[in-house]
Amino acid sequence: MTDTNASRPQPAFPKASDLSLEEKASLTSGGDAWHLQGIESKGVPGYMITDGPHGLRKTEEKTGAVDLNESVPATCFPPAAGMASSWNPQLVEEVGRAMGQECIQEQVAVILGPGVNIKRNPLGGRCFEFWSEDPFLAGHEAVGIVSGVQSQGVGTSLKHFAVNNQETDRLRISARVSQRALREIYLPAFEYIVKTAQPWTVMCAYNQINGVHASQDHWLLTDVLRKEWGFTGIVMSDWGADHDRVASLNAGLNLEMPPSYTDDRVVSAARDGSLPVDQLDSMAQGMIDLAAKAAPAMSRTDYRYSVDEHRDVARRAARESAVLLKNEGALLPLDPNGTVAVIGEFARTPRYQGGGSSHITPTAVSSFLDAAGERGAKVDFAPGFTLDDEPQDESLTSQAVESARKAKSVLLFLGLPEQEESEGADRTNLDLPAKQLDLLKAVSAVNPHVAVVLSNGSVVSIAPWRDQAQAILEGWLLGQDGGRALADLIYGDYSPSGKLAQTIPMDLADDPTMLNWPGEEGHVDYGEGVYVGYRYYDSFHKPVAYPFGFGLSYASFELSDVHVTARQGNTATVSVRVTNTSDRDAAETVQVYVAPGKAKVARPSHELKAFRKVFLKAGESQEISIDLDERAFAYWSETHAGWRIEAGDYGVEVGTSSRDIAATVTISLPGDGKRLPLTEWSTMDEWREDPVGGPIMERMEALGRSGELPELPIDNASAAIFLASMPINSLFVLMGGNGSKLTNYLLDNYAQATHAA
Amino acid sequence: MTDTNASRPQPAFPKASDLSLEEKASLTSGGDAWHLQGIESKGVPGYMITDGPHGLRKTEEKTGAVDLNESVPATCFPPAAGMASSWNPQLVEEVGRAMGQECIQEQVAVILGPGVNIKRNPLGGRCFEFWSEDPFLAGHEAVGIVSGVQSQGVGTSLKHFAVNNQETDRLRISARVSQRALREIYLPAFEYIVKTAQPWTVMCAYNQINGVHASQDHWLLTDVLRKEWGFTGIVMSDWGADHDRVASLNAGLNLEMPPSYTDDRVVSAARDGSLPVDQLDSMAQGMIDLAAKAAPAMSRTDYRYSVDEHRDVARRAARESAVLLKNEGALLPLDPNGTVAVIGEFARTPRYQGGGSSHITPTAVSSFLDAAGERGAKVDFAPGFTLDDEPQDESLTSQAVESARKAKSVLLFLGLPEQEESEGADRTNLDLPAKQLDLLKAVSAVNPHVAVVLSNGSVVSIAPWRDQAQAILEGWLLGQDGGRALADLIYGDYSPSGKLAQTIPMDLADDPTMLNWPGEEGHVDYGEGVYVGYRYYDSFHKPVAYPFGFGLSYASFELSDVHVTARQGNTATVSVRVTNTSDRDAAETVQVYVAPGKAKVARPSHELKAFRKVFLKAGESQEISIDLDERAFAYWSETHAGWRIEAGDYGVEVGTSSRDIAATVTISLPGDGKRLPLTEWSTMDEWREDPVGGPIMERMEALGRSGELPELPIDNASAAIFLASMPINSLFVLMGGNGSKLTNYLLDNYAQATHAA
Repeated sequence: MTDTNASRPQPAFPKASDLSLEEKASLTSGGDAWHLQGIESKGVPGYMITDGPHGLRKTEEKTGAVDLNESVPATCFPPAAGMASSWNPQLVEEVGRAMGQECIQEQVAVILGPGVNIKRNPLGGRCFEFWSEDPFLAGHEAVGIVSGVQSQGVGTSLKHFAVNNQETDRLRISARVSQRALREIYLPAFEYIVKTAQPWTVMCAYNQINGVHASQDHWLLTDVLRKEWGFTGIVMSDWGADHDRVASLNAGLNLEMPPSYTDDRVVSAARDGSLPVDQLDSMAQGMIDLAAKAAPAMSRTDYRYSVDEHRDVARRAARESAVLLKNEGALLPLDPNGTVAVIGEFARTPRYQGGGSSHITPTAVSSFLDAAGERGAKVDFAPGFTLDDEPQDESLTSQAVESARKAKSVLLFLGLPEQEESEGADRTNLDLPAKQLDLLKAVSAVNPHVAVVLSNGSVVSIAPWRDQAQAILEGWLLGQDGGRALADLIYGDYSPSGKLAQTIPMDLADDPTMLNWPGEEGHVDYGEGVYVGYRYYDSFHKPVAYPFGFGLSYASFELSDVHVTARQGNTATVSVRVTNTSDRDAAETVQVYVAPGKAKVARPSHELKAFRKVFLKAGESQEISIDLDERAFAYWSETHAGWRIEAGDYGVEVGTSSRDIAATVTISLPGDGKRLPLTEWSTMDEWREDPVGGPIMERMEALGRSGELPELPIDNASAAIFLASMPINSLFVLMGGNGSKLTNYLLDNYAQATHAA
Repeated sequence: MTDTNASRPQPAFPKASDLSLEEKASLTSGGDAWHLQGIESKGVPGYMITDGPHGLRKTEEKTGAVDLNESVPATCFPPAAGMASSWNPQLVEEVGRAMGQECIQEQVAVILGPGVNIKRNPLGGRCFEFWSEDPFLAGHEAVGIVSGVQSQGVGTSLKHFAVNNQETDRLRISARVSQRALREIYLPAFEYIVKTAQPWTVMCAYNQINGVHASQDHWLLTDVLRKEWGFTGIVMSDWGADHDRVASLNAGLNLEMPPSYTDDRVVSAARDGSLPVDQLDSMAQGMIDLAAKAAPAMSRTDYRYSVDEHRDVARRAARESAVLLKNEGALLPLDPNGTVAVIGEFARTPRYQGGGSSHITPTAVSSFLDAAGERGAKVDFAPGFTLDDEPQDESLTSQAVESARKAKSVLLFLGLPEQEESEGADRTNLDLPAKQLDLLKAVSAVNPHVAVVLSNGSVVSIAPWRDQAQAILEGWLLGQDGGRALADLIYGDYSPSGKLAQTIPMDLADDPTMLNWPGEEGHVDYGEGVYVGYRYYDSFHKPVAYPFGFGLSYASFELSDVHVTARQGNTATVSVRVTNTSDRDAAETVQVYVAPGKAKVARPSHELKAFRKVFLKAGESQEISIDLDERAFAYWSETHAGWRIEAGDYGVEVGTSSRDIAATVTISLPGDGKRLPLTEWSTMDEWREDPVGGPIMERMEALGRSGELPELPIDNASAAIFLASMPINSLFVLMGGNGSKLTNYLLDNYAQATHAA
């Protein structure tokens, strides 16, 4: 915490060490459910903090309890599930800046978000507010929220740290996950954002990780977050994630939310030494520093943001969030002057955000019908179905079919009703409601020109019905101005440019996380290891409905002139020419995957390591250059307890989805040269391959041939197989008492050689 | 060890506690690689022990080292991969009796086997000598080896205890496996055999289990094996699996094999107290008891077994081991008087066993060609290919094609050459050699009536080429008289009756263990948990080439009159009528699977819990009755640290493979009534569902409505979702300071109620 002390901007704030134990303790818990605890007499304000993450959810009044119903109006931007599909970090940052401005107006010092947990399984109840199945994409997009909000002098809270990938039993469950999967899948999005954008706060998760509550995990909150990654902000608990304030403060948790009114326990612990005063000081100082950082923005009490400008940001964000999955015969865009049947209640009553702590009261909402009306488009609307769980009203079907029969083409708005996706519960299947699918069948039977527009926060099954649609536009949840954004795309003012941030599987049962979902008896085994999402589907050549990174455009593009150059220190530079070969302005997203060659550990067949969204006018061409850093080639080694880059060949794939690779260039890297020391447990093969051990082994064998040492029984084929993988401490098995002579020869000479060196 | 002391049959043997420390220590290590250490002066003989498990592998001379090349002739019975397909425990026991007799003649006190490790992944290098992917089947078949051998007064060694499921890095690797998967998948075969047949010895595995070497695993060797299961024999190390004799002796390992000549360390440890003398006595006493048990049989030095009778046992075992996978148009059996082209070197040079420690020198070998000749069948033989790794000799192809063209039908012998399967190395793919598949293509192009006869110890891919064969007979490895056995089946003297003991997948990449195979950096995560083999394929509705339990017959059968009756204490009885509806004598195997209903843990869709092979003459019908014990319905609960049977519905499926279920009867069981006590970490739902907690919760809510306690905020839909899964220690999150009043009310009243009760 010394760094933050040094850069503390408001010297008028007290030093924690000058406060009483009671005051220090008070700072490490909320003032109420949505405020920090201030100390008025010492000039520490108790600023408000509120939920995000895709807009401000500021509750109306001070309260000791959590109430998710009411909040002041704020711009509802597309939730992460939508925005993640933009693959546009600059756009995300713009959204962040707007949210920061709304925080200033509403006097909110910290907005809680972004939530960068990995979408381990598409049933996850909060998938709608998380970014991706891929940690690189999640980190490189969500960082825009942090940098954007914080550019306005307002804090963010990077959450939920860590491994909070499901709702089932989330307050207790222990995620049993390997160190490698932690480092390669579940932590990198946090790591990248902490290192590049220093969120003011990090929110620890409810769950346990390998048996330790995140709020009490010293390894996680102190060793990794602060010491390894250099985090200088504060860690707060998710609401109710702290269960033992003393243990949590010791682990590195600065702030319990909401307050459990147990300051007395903290004070006693500081008195009896079970909470070292230094540690309490450090945790409390973080809280003072946080208030100090927020003070300038919070002093701007007369600031007002532009509601209209923010609505336009939300519209642009929504426009880039939709993903065009299918468009046979260029059904989309529609002729604005043609007649179209618009079917589906979602066209009139948009579903634009999810439920739970992220639920926002928008400043205004546009439906597609509103937007179509604004532009004078001719539409014949039929609601088709209701958004409740009631059985289908057949008169709605008849009306919709009649409307479809008369129209040139049909826009059919399908989706998940709000009650199907919310914080607090995981989904149980990926299906759209049966009555909606029945309607699709009925409608497509009378009019083959059906474009389905989807509204859903998490992946839904598409493969079973996609043949009944000529076009499919996946709209996710698009925030409050999604209606206008959809009209922009559907009528062709803009081309869709979204790309999937999550694989759409053929069948949920294909997903390897289903073998351990959602866990049982208080734990969930992450048995699939690093094989999450496309890392599984692509490595094991499994069919998917739509692959990770996929999305169509009204335009067409060509990638050419792909060059990859290996650089000093296991890095590389990729260059590629992107050409818009169509007569429409549009954007393509270049994706770079690294495909490791032969490796000592099982690695996914390829992993996303860079991307760039390129906006090109009709016919325009541009050469882009992307750097790959060391991490792009590394895996986490449990035996080395660190990142490892093996020497060898790596394929660098440049494409437009994980399964549309335009070119692969193989480069050779020198590797990091790391080796583990040889021991009696190292195998004969490991000795042979080692630069020090190999020559010793050769000398030993020569001495064996000349009779000065016992000879290895390698003339025997079976023995040779056994020997290769035999630790040298087991030679006696094949050689009786002679074995130990060789074991000792190897160990003694190795000790000498490494001591000498 | 007190039990064994009590039943020690030879009172002339010394008591361990009467020996010197040096003598005790000496007993806990081998005399040489293949002998126990005797103490001549005290009358303890150093009997021989030798490899099995499908016949005796007695090395020619005393040696300090392991030599797998030479052994005295013995009957080579079908290895487990074959015999497991018989689903006939009585037959297995007959084989065991024969092996026991050969041990007496050869003065072998203990034969090492059976190996009942689960075939977790079909690439496992020792799959050929293991039994099944299913622990029930493995245990209920392999038990016959133990009871058969031991009925002759000779010991067995149940191996490799435990979780030795791969060859890669097997001397070091740590299997990271959940307690539940251990108890439900990896231990039950051992448990059943120990409890029902008391093998004289158990051999501990090389590998580590969750970071502890099996040889040093007190939990495994003492707590589970001896205390829970009541094992009274001795535990020996696999050859070289002991790395620290003192640690191993303390854990419960009686015998180190082969000797590492480190008795002095044991003596010092006994002197300095790091090895309690009681424990050393107990381990040494086990070795004396073992010698005493073997003494009567070992005194029969003039005993001679009947080589011919044993050969006939081998032939019968082989006959029941082959599995008929496909037989379109009843191509098999062949007319003994018709001409047939017999193609494939395996017809002349049979592959009848695997490599490594189980490799036996047979008393005689019959090839299919020999057997066909003996019965005067007309065959036109062409070798077709060589068994080495050389490229195809095209003249062999031409000859084979020519032969096929002229014949009425073709018997094509394909298989895995010996070098592809051996202890010490896992396989890298499931494919038959390319040159053999090319030959099949060429042959089937000129003659569609091709019956493929397979020789392979482990599963091979069949789906890619099965359309080119009209019939497929999977012969596995059939032991020394497999040639005659195949002729018996192919010419119709007997009908095939084997059933698959392992799923044959469509594609190796479908297997969930592939995500963690064969591990890395010293560990392998058993991430699939209990979903091994058909438990995965059937639960997740994945297509397979041939399902577990599948096998065709020349006869046809009908299962009818299926009745299932629930009995006292969560048991049940199944009855079913089996009718041979054909004009051929043959056998059908009735399989009973239990399909749990809704359960608190994720359970496989169904699991094999009983089977019965029924031999029926043409037209014969028989009613059989099978009991299901408690375990048939139980799962291992980690929170209860024991078996649990939930109340509720269970489907009892009766069929002839895991995917050919003739009838399912649903029964309702009362369950075991086990409950965990409620705590502050129990959720609101868990309190509600508890017979004690539920009424307390109701009273609390009533007091809330009447204003005497704070009221739960359950009118709010989101809050209601949150509340259900909320531990009661977190109520303050929704209710501020009022929460703790309710938490305390619940805990206090529960303490009173349970204290009173």
